[in-house]
Amino acid sequence: MLEWLETTLKRLNVTDTMDPPQGFTRLGYTQEEWAAMDVFQQVAEELGLNVRQDAAGNRIARWETEQEDYPSVSGLTAIPGASSRPAVALGSHLDTVVSGGGYDGVAGLLCALGAVKWLKRQGFTPLYPVEIICFAAEESARFGVSTIGSKAMAGLLSVEELAGVKDQHGITLREAVEQMGLSWSDITKAERSQQEIKRFVELHIEQGTRIEKSGAQFGVATAIACPIRLKIEVEGQMGHTGTTPMDERRDALVAVAPLISFVAERAEQLSASSPCPVVATASTLQVKPNVMNVIPGWVELGIDIRSVDDKLKIQLAQSIKEKCAELEQCYHVKIKIDTLVHNPSVTLDRSVADDLLQTGERLGYKGLLMESGAGHDVMNMAHKWPSGLLFIPCREGLSHHPREYAALDDLLMGTHILAAYLQGEAGE
Amino acid sequence: MLEWLETTLKRLNVTDTMDPPQGFTRLGYTQEEWAAMDVFQQVAEELGLNVRQDAAGNRIARWETEQEDYPSVSGLTAIPGASSRPAVALGSHLDTVVSGGGYDGVAGLLCALGAVKWLKRQGFTPLYPVEIICFAAEESARFGVSTIGSKAMAGLLSVEELAGVKDQHGITLREAVEQMGLSWSDITKAERSQQEIKRFVELHIEQGTRIEKSGAQFGVATAIACPIRLKIEVEGQMGHTGTTPMDERRDALVAVAPLISFVAERAEQLSASSPCPVVATASTLQVKPNVMNVIPGWVELGIDIRSVDDKLKIQLAQSIKEKCAELEQCYHVKIKIDTLVHNPSVTLDRSVADDLLQTGERLGYKGLLMESGAGHDVMNMAHKWPSGLLFIPCREGLSHHPREYAALDDLLMGTHILAAYLQGEAGE
Repeated sequence: MLEWLETTLKRLNVTDTMDPPQGFTRLGYTQEEWAAMDVFQQVAEELGLNVRQDAAGNRIARWETEQEDYPSVSGLTAIPGASSRPAVALGSHLDTVVSGGGYDGVAGLLCALGAVKWLKRQGFTPLYPVEIICFAAEESARFGVSTIGSKAMAGLLSVEELAGVKDQHGITLREAVEQMGLSWSDITKAERSQQEIKRFVELHIEQGTRIEKSGAQFGVATAIACPIRLKIEVEGQMGHTGTTPMDERRDALVAVAPLISFVAERAEQLSASSPCPVVATASTLQVKPNVMNVIPGWVELGIDIRSVDDKLKIQLAQSIKEKCAELEQCYHVKIKIDTLVHNPSVTLDRSVADDLLQTGERLGYKGLLMESGAGHDVMNMAHKWPSGLLFIPCREGLSHHPREYAALDDLLMGTHILAAYLQGEAGE
Repeated sequence: MLEWLETTLKRLNVTDTMDPPQGFTRLGYTQEEWAAMDVFQQVAEELGLNVRQDAAGNRIARWETEQEDYPSVSGLTAIPGASSRPAVALGSHLDTVVSGGGYDGVAGLLCALGAVKWLKRQGFTPLYPVEIICFAAEESARFGVSTIGSKAMAGLLSVEELAGVKDQHGITLREAVEQMGLSWSDITKAERSQQEIKRFVELHIEQGTRIEKSGAQFGVATAIACPIRLKIEVEGQMGHTGTTPMDERRDALVAVAPLISFVAERAEQLSASSPCPVVATASTLQVKPNVMNVIPGWVELGIDIRSVDDKLKIQLAQSIKEKCAELEQCYHVKIKIDTLVHNPSVTLDRSVADDLLQTGERLGYKGLLMESGAGHDVMNMAHKWPSGLLFIPCREGLSHHPREYAALDDLLMGTHILAAYLQGEAGE
């Protein structure tokens, strides 16, 4: 199994080595993502699953129940209504950020495929269909919008609002989707009914170090900290760097610098004084005109705020707004604040979480109930179906980085936990 | 004359309006710069000047002395040795920054052309050749290197060092020069001997507000504050914005933010405590990977420091280095500092400055002796020839900006001062 996991990990990453110096770049709705999805389909078909692509470009690999596949050959008693039974679904994604790692997303599909392989070898016969869903475009790296495929499946996609969002080359989401042979106006057809899915579970690398620090071996999330994202636009005044006296400047970069420090310091203070952590990052910054001899006249800063406690997020966003008002006065600039994203945090189904925890511990692994600081496809699925999120550790908590790494032993552990979970949920 | 100045201003800017919303973009060694230079040549030829292009792409328009042009027709006494007499040269440039104004550089050539037109109408006969030099690629906006044409003419171009510098599209300076039909290996042939030029004078918009504030109408520079430019590269650690606790981060942007504030504050303090001002600007900033859900792992900051007092520049650069060492410790990042440019400030010829001041004041304008905070082509010419720099005011000191503006009356004043100066220097 270890060897199969190692080989399939590389296959899904469309690579010969897991250590390319620039990492992996498979942005959503690109040929690179599609090539990896084609491999996913191939591996799933090798395992005997039927694979289809939905209207959003998600690939759904399905292990049908006996009755449907072999109604006359198997000799088993027909299970009444089996064909209409809801599926127990696993899933994750294959797209990455720019220069990301080969485990974020991939690990979840690899372990799910491994679990099916394992169960097939054990001669397991599912009473409920088992699905592995490879979601399209989970990362926000290309369009600033995350989890597009799972939003579509859960009926949460704002088709009109998102059609025109652009990537850095000016390609709209609508164009990108259509370049992959899909139809933007049909994308909502990817929505599935509540009856189609019994449970959804995503396995993901932790992207943090809490599992390791607590002495556990795997984690199970009870909630997902969804972000508030702010766009801060600062308008100052360009001018020649050599001829404009210091006291006559309205430098947009000088005005925004204290805000960058403030965001980090305030998040640290709030976390220290609250039972629940809050993290905040000034993660994007653009300066115009960005040339050596011109005073920055315009700066745009993107801020990402996360906590499973929505009140803390709102409190921090509020202090950022107050700080901006202060900076406007102090540096004689104009500051415009847009809330790009304000997603309430998602509480996951407690019984699924308990099942996952017990399943792992029965196999002899120590588990940790925890929150997820990152969003995942499961947060959309959880709006419609009882859902769970299983974490395996990754080295130094590193993610979205070429050095992202999860040990094969941990991938094997994840495979075993998912297989045992499927045995319970899709068996009797 | 006012009408001719207004028309010619638009011609040199290759435009119908001086208020295009995006300003003017004519980067060095591009078709846009060349198109403006072609107009310069056309206007100069309309005035009866002979125009040639040198090996660096500078255009040199020359008003020959009588003896050379009309040795037999004029009937004047031949002036012995006139053909080998050094030229009295005026000049500036036509390239701009991205979205710059239509006066920076253009004003100098416009007033020089206007001065020749004026003198020709007055029937003035030069005893020394008069030249108007349109320098190539003065702005550093494209390659981060300024005044390429005048460096070549003064023999200051580091051909080997600069061949490979690239613009943002990856085109090297060498390639850009050759795309204009020039030869990089021949570019040093643009160097001229000391005997060829008697005086060089550049007229430029002030790009500041000192003339207006002092109650004067024009300025004459005694020195030019050349920059020290630093490139500060900060290497932190990327990570997921949602899963990395605040106290485990090595955020390159958070580490560099206090430096941006420090540069501005320290320059202001130093200026306040010194007889001579020093200005410093964190003018360029690039973040990687610059996506919403990844902690900035890498930042590059460009800093521009200027003063005519070189000691102040060095002192400020030194404090920046010390601050970087402190930030490295405090934020657990690595900081690398490169000195991109370290040009000692240039003292201009005092007798040329006095002549320009007296010439302007004889015409009834009030002049101000001052320093130049910005570099200009004249700083290279001054290394080889007695040179001067004449300023006319520009509105609100705005420059490198679409709203850059100089009044026609001030352009006319500049024209008159240059004409009177040429009468003195190129006449008897």
